[in-house]
Amino acid sequence: MAGRIEVGILGATGMVGQQFISQLRNHPWFTLTWLAASERSEGRKYVEAAPWRLEASPPDGLGSRLVQAAVPGRGPRLVFSALDAGVAGEIEEAFAAAGHLVVSNARNHRLDATVPLLVPEVNADHLALAASQRAAKGWGGAIVTNPNCSTVVLSMALAPLRPFGLRSCIVTTMQAVSGAGYPGVPSFDILGNAIPFISGEEEKIEIETRKILGTLAGGRVEMHAVAVSAHTNRVPVLDGHTETVSVALGQPIEAADLRAAFEAFRGAPQELGLPSAPPHPIVYLDQPNRPQPRFDAMRDGGMTVSVGRLRPCPVLGWKFVTLGHNTIRGAAGAAVLNAELIVSRGWMD
Amino acid sequence: MAGRIEVGILGATGMVGQQFISQLRNHPWFTLTWLAASERSEGRKYVEAAPWRLEASPPDGLGSRLVQAAVPGRGPRLVFSALDAGVAGEIEEAFAAAGHLVVSNARNHRLDATVPLLVPEVNADHLALAASQRAAKGWGGAIVTNPNCSTVVLSMALAPLRPFGLRSCIVTTMQAVSGAGYPGVPSFDILGNAIPFISGEEEKIEIETRKILGTLAGGRVEMHAVAVSAHTNRVPVLDGHTETVSVALGQPIEAADLRAAFEAFRGAPQELGLPSAPPHPIVYLDQPNRPQPRFDAMRDGGMTVSVGRLRPCPVLGWKFVTLGHNTIRGAAGAAVLNAELIVSRGWMD
Amino acid sequence: MAGRIEVGILGATGMVGQQFISQLRNHPWFTLTWLAASERSEGRKYVEAAPWRLEASPPDGLGSRLVQAAVPGRGPRLVFSALDAGVAGEIEEAFAAAGHLVVSNARNHRLDATVPLLVPEVNADHLALAASQRAAKGWGGAIVTNPNCSTVVLSMALAPLRPFGLRSCIVTTMQAVSGAGYPGVPSFDILGNAIPFISGEEEKIEIETRKILGTLAGGRVEMHAVAVSAHTNRVPVLDGHTETVSVALGQPIEAADLRAAFEAFRGAPQELGLPSAPPHPIVYLDQPNRPQPRFDAMRDGGMTVSVGRLRPCPVLGWKFVTLGHNTIRGAAGAAVLNAELIVSRGWMD
Amino acid sequence: MAGRIEVGILGATGMVGQQFISQLRNHPWFTLTWLAASERSEGRKYVEAAPWRLEASPPDGLGSRLVQAAVPGRGPRLVFSALDAGVAGEIEEAFAAAGHLVVSNARNHRLDATVPLLVPEVNADHLALAASQRAAKGWGGAIVTNPNCSTVVLSMALAPLRPFGLRSCIVTTMQAVSGAGYPGVPSFDILGNAIPFISGEEEKIEIETRKILGTLAGGRVEMHAVAVSAHTNRVPVLDGHTETVSVALGQPIEAADLRAAFEAFRGAPQELGLPSAPPHPIVYLDQPNRPQPRFDAMRDGGMTVSVGRLRPCPVLGWKFVTLGHNTIRGAAGAAVLNAELIVSRGWMD
Repeated sequence: MAGRIEVGILGATGMVGQQFISQLRNHPWFTLTWLAASERSEGRKYVEAAPWRLEASPPDGLGSRLVQAAVPGRGPRLVFSALDAGVAGEIEEAFAAAGHLVVSNARNHRLDATVPLLVPEVNADHLALAASQRAAKGWGGAIVTNPNCSTVVLSMALAPLRPFGLRSCIVTTMQAVSGAGYPGVPSFDILGNAIPFISGEEEKIEIETRKILGTLAGGRVEMHAVAVSAHTNRVPVLDGHTETVSVALGQPIEAADLRAAFEAFRGAPQELGLPSAPPHPIVYLDQPNRPQPRFDAMRDGGMTVSVGRLRPCPVLGWKFVTLGHNTIRGAAGAAVLNAELIVSRGWMD
Repeated sequence: MAGRIEVGILGATGMVGQQFISQLRNHPWFTLTWLAASERSEGRKYVEAAPWRLEASPPDGLGSRLVQAAVPGRGPRLVFSALDAGVAGEIEEAFAAAGHLVVSNARNHRLDATVPLLVPEVNADHLALAASQRAAKGWGGAIVTNPNCSTVVLSMALAPLRPFGLRSCIVTTMQAVSGAGYPGVPSFDILGNAIPFISGEEEKIEIETRKILGTLAGGRVEMHAVAVSAHTNRVPVLDGHTETVSVALGQPIEAADLRAAFEAFRGAPQELGLPSAPPHPIVYLDQPNRPQPRFDAMRDGGMTVSVGRLRPCPVLGWKFVTLGHNTIRGAAGAAVLNAELIVSRGWMD
Repeated sequence: MAGRIEVGILGATGMVGQQFISQLRNHPWFTLTWLAASERSEGRKYVEAAPWRLEASPPDGLGSRLVQAAVPGRGPRLVFSALDAGVAGEIEEAFAAAGHLVVSNARNHRLDATVPLLVPEVNADHLALAASQRAAKGWGGAIVTNPNCSTVVLSMALAPLRPFGLRSCIVTTMQAVSGAGYPGVPSFDILGNAIPFISGEEEKIEIETRKILGTLAGGRVEMHAVAVSAHTNRVPVLDGHTETVSVALGQPIEAADLRAAFEAFRGAPQELGLPSAPPHPIVYLDQPNRPQPRFDAMRDGGMTVSVGRLRPCPVLGWKFVTLGHNTIRGAAGAAVLNAELIVSRGWMD
Repeated sequence: MAGRIEVGILGATGMVGQQFISQLRNHPWFTLTWLAASERSEGRKYVEAAPWRLEASPPDGLGSRLVQAAVPGRGPRLVFSALDAGVAGEIEEAFAAAGHLVVSNARNHRLDATVPLLVPEVNADHLALAASQRAAKGWGGAIVTNPNCSTVVLSMALAPLRPFGLRSCIVTTMQAVSGAGYPGVPSFDILGNAIPFISGEEEKIEIETRKILGTLAGGRVEMHAVAVSAHTNRVPVLDGHTETVSVALGQPIEAADLRAAFEAFRGAPQELGLPSAPPHPIVYLDQPNRPQPRFDAMRDGGMTVSVGRLRPCPVLGWKFVTLGHNTIRGAAGAAVLNAELIVSRGWMD
């Protein structure tokens, strides 16, 4: 890791783009040198194209940097995609074809057979898909994705249960408004209210989770057999998705063993010592009323998933609560961790 | 129904007591003549003993009425109990022994074998338990209860599914702060937050639902065999509990038939034309993002339960969202409907 | 008032349009027969052009009514304007020129010398401006306006103080999100936050108040001499603007006399018995912590302004708190009351 | 500053006590060695006596420390008082009499003629009162206080205006719920609401500000002549009090000069380089919609006061918005800064 690595952001002027900027500040490996957006913003100062909206203050000097046009071939080899799904599909492909490694938060390519859908603690080996992707497409670069924000939290909480024969899972989410981007949810809709619907979210959780937990064999990912059923809800919370989970396992097990499995859970980021890796991917909380978004979402910089309230479920066997920071572990931080994995595996050498 | 019926409230100075007062205003059968509380409040003006806390303004003249001591034998024969669980057990028994019909919202006696736990649309026949109660205890009066606020909503939504072989149910609640009484949940705990724990609530839902859906046979209630698993959460909503529900049924069924079952659902209150009976106990909402507490909790004066988003559940078979007003259908309105049932069945004759 | 009067709405598909629809439901004089919007919506069913967003359910049959194009000369003679300021200026003039009486909630013409800016309890006589307007413009119709939502509340609270030599006023508002329309304030901006700025609002309060309190003389309104200074803020409240007010009066006065002035305040709507007139335009609340938006905004259907906490101000002399419903008394209800005044003065004969 | 200084907390188990614990973590001078509370808690583990309620996690090892009885003469010489006003008066006096330097956040002694009421950037010289206090009372120790949370913010924003002849000030606060302690404001009261009353708060602001801005002469503080009028409100915000301020100055001045005065403002903490001193006590924000609690309260660890929106006031001359963190700059951080001042002035030598 001799020299620093230049990185860029596609869609730098949106809410997710700002989350990437925030996440990359002071990164030990990556230097953000390229802020790309639609041609409409090209040449404008960042601060004028995109008023800063996050609580964490923007990096020094950000405001005066110029926004570039998102033209394939320009910018660093390693680019993060914060593009809206409406445009991400074609643009990401064009960048990969032009030789870029595109580390994307968009949903468009997550389910493509040759695109890795990574949670590095869970399925770092799926990165191998990217080699077949390059071969199949004849691209100089590649596309690598992270899951939907709710799915990251769920799949991390389920991963330690795979050894016990994970069969089915019913999850209900209570999701923060920051997950809807900006302007996102109108305050008139959500103040003092709960909305039991988020478009497309349940489908993503139900299928993405199975790909993430799936097995790489013969150059392809076989979906995990677990049946997943999701109920998704929006609640008046700023950051942090809370999820109640019931699971059926294939074998009898003690609560202490399940808890130990959560606490012992480690993956490639911890083994490799990746900069964004939390020391414990999952922290189990003993207090009876935790995790809670306001107190637990930012644990370890927002990269740790919290689990609590493990107890028997009269229907499926076990139930618990899990929580993660939706825009960090569930979006920008997830992508940065993916990029760190890619670099550590020699893709940028 | 020639003359009006005098009623009283035990625990009239608390939050639930005020909800009873609000619910009884302009009641076509009942006249509230007795406001009872602990001896500490005896003889004080109501307005001084209990500042009014509800959005609906208090009935005219309430403020100057005097609070009475809750002494068994005093007050009307029909009394509503808004007592805290810490004291309700003994006081309600003493009133029943002294000849009162105690229509209680407290949890203490709900699971007693001879105490009816009523949702009149679902199990009006369980009122027959009260006769054996009087015989067994040698009381002139009796105790009749309504369920926990979350349980009312769930049991109403499940009742139409009984004919299809209801086997199991996983429910996640998002509960309003008014359910915690006053002062209840500190604002410092819940602003911008969700709390995945409500003490004792999951146990109540899991067992009370089975009693309500159970069958009266041989003078006792046989619990329904459905396995119920509850995840309960507090969210920053004022009124209205939202519940996501997955159910397993014993037989194949079409969505249209389930929906028709919700819409066709009627019970004793509708047949008898009880004053507080909503025309449709369950309303099915077509909009994809409903029901929502701010828009649906007060439907038909807060006595209707809303259901929406019926769709297949990959794990249990079917899933949907249900919502009801926790302090009306889930507490004071439930008890008033119980009292109306009791009167209509001749217990006050 | 022999027959019913047909009315229409310009801009019927927006948030303010829906507030007009809601306010006109069951109106004893007016029948809403014409829902007009931009040509983009023409011919569509209302429910498809404009999903209903208010808590109060929509009038029966609304959904299937067709949206009309806002073409001057079409529709009823009396039309309410719920148009955005971006387009209201020209469209309202065109309608007035075509013979319509345009009762507008838009800001565009409020300060025109010949346009009445009415709060009927305060300055019903200003309606006379409309006659000179018609003459000056050669219009068959006329434009009549109501003030900005914060200004209505303030000017009603100040009107009873005019006899005591009102000299200056400093007001700080805490305004509800419904005042910003839809989608309005993003939830990400306002959850758990306060925003000390609302674009253009302070200027409106400072000048509109002086026109409303001004004196009609020689066919024109002379601005009231009171100096008004406004601080405007957005807070996480749904409905109801709260305002803290300090005032300097020109003469010594007792608190009891001020309070009596608030309570005795009446105007043309009360004298004429207009349908939307609240019995008491201002209600003085004795509780030390009132008025509050959740408990007081909907008083008398949202048409009453609440005042409380009258006490000496060490700087200006007197201070108090006032509150009104921003979308009813401050917008749609204000305009409907204006229309009732117009009708009662014979403009529709 | 050779050795570290041991400090204790009176009232360590309450909400303010926890804020002191949080504020003292990793302090470069102070080591927290004594957690005192009422005898009821004596000998209990801290975690059992006082569940941790703050977002910032508690210091390592806190939970297992034992709570001590608050007995004068025990514990370190320097003690912070987080006591409730109901008991603070006598206990603080007893500790001062027993030789302790009591740095108090309680209101009881703030207005005593010989008790310094300090905002170290504003009136560090008032600390001299403590010497006469010791002499007058014959105490080995002394009591030093910081102002009410709203008052700190206001007095810091007004201090730079003193040179321009500060004559009067009208302030309206929008205060966070954390200012009310725990359990504090019930969520049922404040969700979606604003409460225009905080008991005793306006009186504190109106008098404390004048003492803080006053002049030390002849061993006593002469109150500043400025007339202050306060309107105080509670809003659904967690941390950060926002205040709108209108001021009358005794001389004409340009906006640029006022702004320069805010930005140039410094005091003893900055000159002495005290550990808790923010580099700029006041930061002026250019954005038209700032300061806002969610984005600005935690500036520089919560010790900086933000000012923005400076503009002419048609009534008093100038108006602006100011904001500060109520539990840090307005309470625990304020007291720690006071203690640092005391130490730097040699009182602990």
